[in-house]
Amino acid sequence: MNLLLLERHDFVSESTAIIGGRRLQHLRKTQQLQIGKTLCTGILNGPIGLGQIVEIANDQLQISTQWLESSPEPAPLTLILALPRPKYLGRVLQAVTTLGIKHIHLINSFRVEKSFWQSEELSESSIRENLILGLEQCRDTRLPEVHLHRRFKPFVEDLAPRLVQGHQAYVAHPGTRLVEPAEPPKNSPILLPQLLAVGPEGGWINYEVELFRQAGFKLLAWGERTLKLETALIALMSRLLP
Amino acid sequence: MNLLLLERHDFVSESTAIIGGRRLQHLRKTQQLQIGKTLCTGILNGPIGLGQIVEIANDQLQISTQWLESSPEPAPLTLILALPRPKYLGRVLQAVTTLGIKHIHLINSFRVEKSFWQSEELSESSIRENLILGLEQCRDTRLPEVHLHRRFKPFVEDLAPRLVQGHQAYVAHPGTRLVEPAEPPKNSPILLPQLLAVGPEGGWINYEVELFRQAGFKLLAWGERTLKLETALIALMSRLLP
Repeated sequence: MNLLLLERHDFVSESTAIIGGRRLQHLRKTQQLQIGKTLCTGILNGPIGLGQIVEIANDQLQISTQWLESSPEPAPLTLILALPRPKYLGRVLQAVTTLGIKHIHLINSFRVEKSFWQSEELSESSIRENLILGLEQCRDTRLPEVHLHRRFKPFVEDLAPRLVQGHQAYVAHPGTRLVEPAEPPKNSPILLPQLLAVGPEGGWINYEVELFRQAGFKLLAWGERTLKLETALIALMSRLLP
Repeated sequence: MNLLLLERHDFVSESTAIIGGRRLQHLRKTQQLQIGKTLCTGILNGPIGLGQIVEIANDQLQISTQWLESSPEPAPLTLILALPRPKYLGRVLQAVTTLGIKHIHLINSFRVEKSFWQSEELSESSIRENLILGLEQCRDTRLPEVHLHRRFKPFVEDLAPRLVQGHQAYVAHPGTRLVEPAEPPKNSPILLPQLLAVGPEGGWINYEVELFRQAGFKLLAWGERTLKLETALIALMSRLLP
């Protein structure tokens, strides 16, 4: 936790907040807490500043806050991701959040197992918890938006063409052949925000890639090596981010 | 396992190998094995091809091999990495291997806990196992070389300046300020191989960064957000790779 993220309901007055539970436990484990100590603090979807400890009790901490700057600029990239295996979902959401992504579409695909859509990890509270952990790690306050799309075809035919508008859109496809250049054009006149669609383990099926292409996506591959989903995701996003 | 990696001692004749143990267990778990089935197969530090199953027994599999192509080109990047926390070391080595890195220097740093150097995960067999898992994942056969340097100063003063020769050398330093441009020069006349030094969680101390700079490294940072070691590592390498 590199930033203590406060929410509106933590505040007991305009500038004083009280925390307990997971956040307090984590702070206790990782640092020496004492009256007067300051912590890097943010308010959800708000500014960043310093929180000074004013009171320490067994089960709660009282903090006096002072806001100094706005949160970092969002990364100009919207991610479309075939729903990962539930046991990896949390880690993937955290990693994507730490890179500053604010719009995430989790979609169905032929190689996404149906059972994934029933998992507890997809609950609103579980998703939110992982986004918050990502924000705490990277010192950001803006909560990403996660949208679930349980049917592939309506997504790619109806919504994807609208998402493509005003974006450079890429569909990532593992394999040894690059159909289009892997790098976005270097001398494009305006730097457009990116839209990146990353498939499940094993990749999209050809039919899905074809529908993405019809929706305006270009093909983006990663050399000859087959990467794990999380590695591929970070490596591809890192290449597309400014 | 996207590639069945064989070693010389698996071979009972020039083209026939017998495997058992972990590899067989993994194959049994992930696919239907039957006589005549072909698997993507490689030989350690050798070519890649097809292995056809010719005999299935309880505890072993006999495979007839045929070599078709050489392994992928190594990534032109040498990694210097402050020794990670033992519980992450295996995962980090696997991820780095899947990106095609062949030279890894694990070094000491002020923020590396002394106990890390005593961990079982640093044994030759444990390191090798994780490199092999990485190769199996990314369909490669060339085993990376991992060098351990238990003392920071001799490494950075004696060896680092020699590693820098003929390389573009960067020392990654988290933080909000970029001292030198984050991107390698676009119009450098010759594309040199890269040398990247990545610090421990919490980063290098200033003294260490200064010694790297004296050895010829430029500073490389990642925007405003604090990433987890593994995320930062993949993101930085992805940016530097061609």
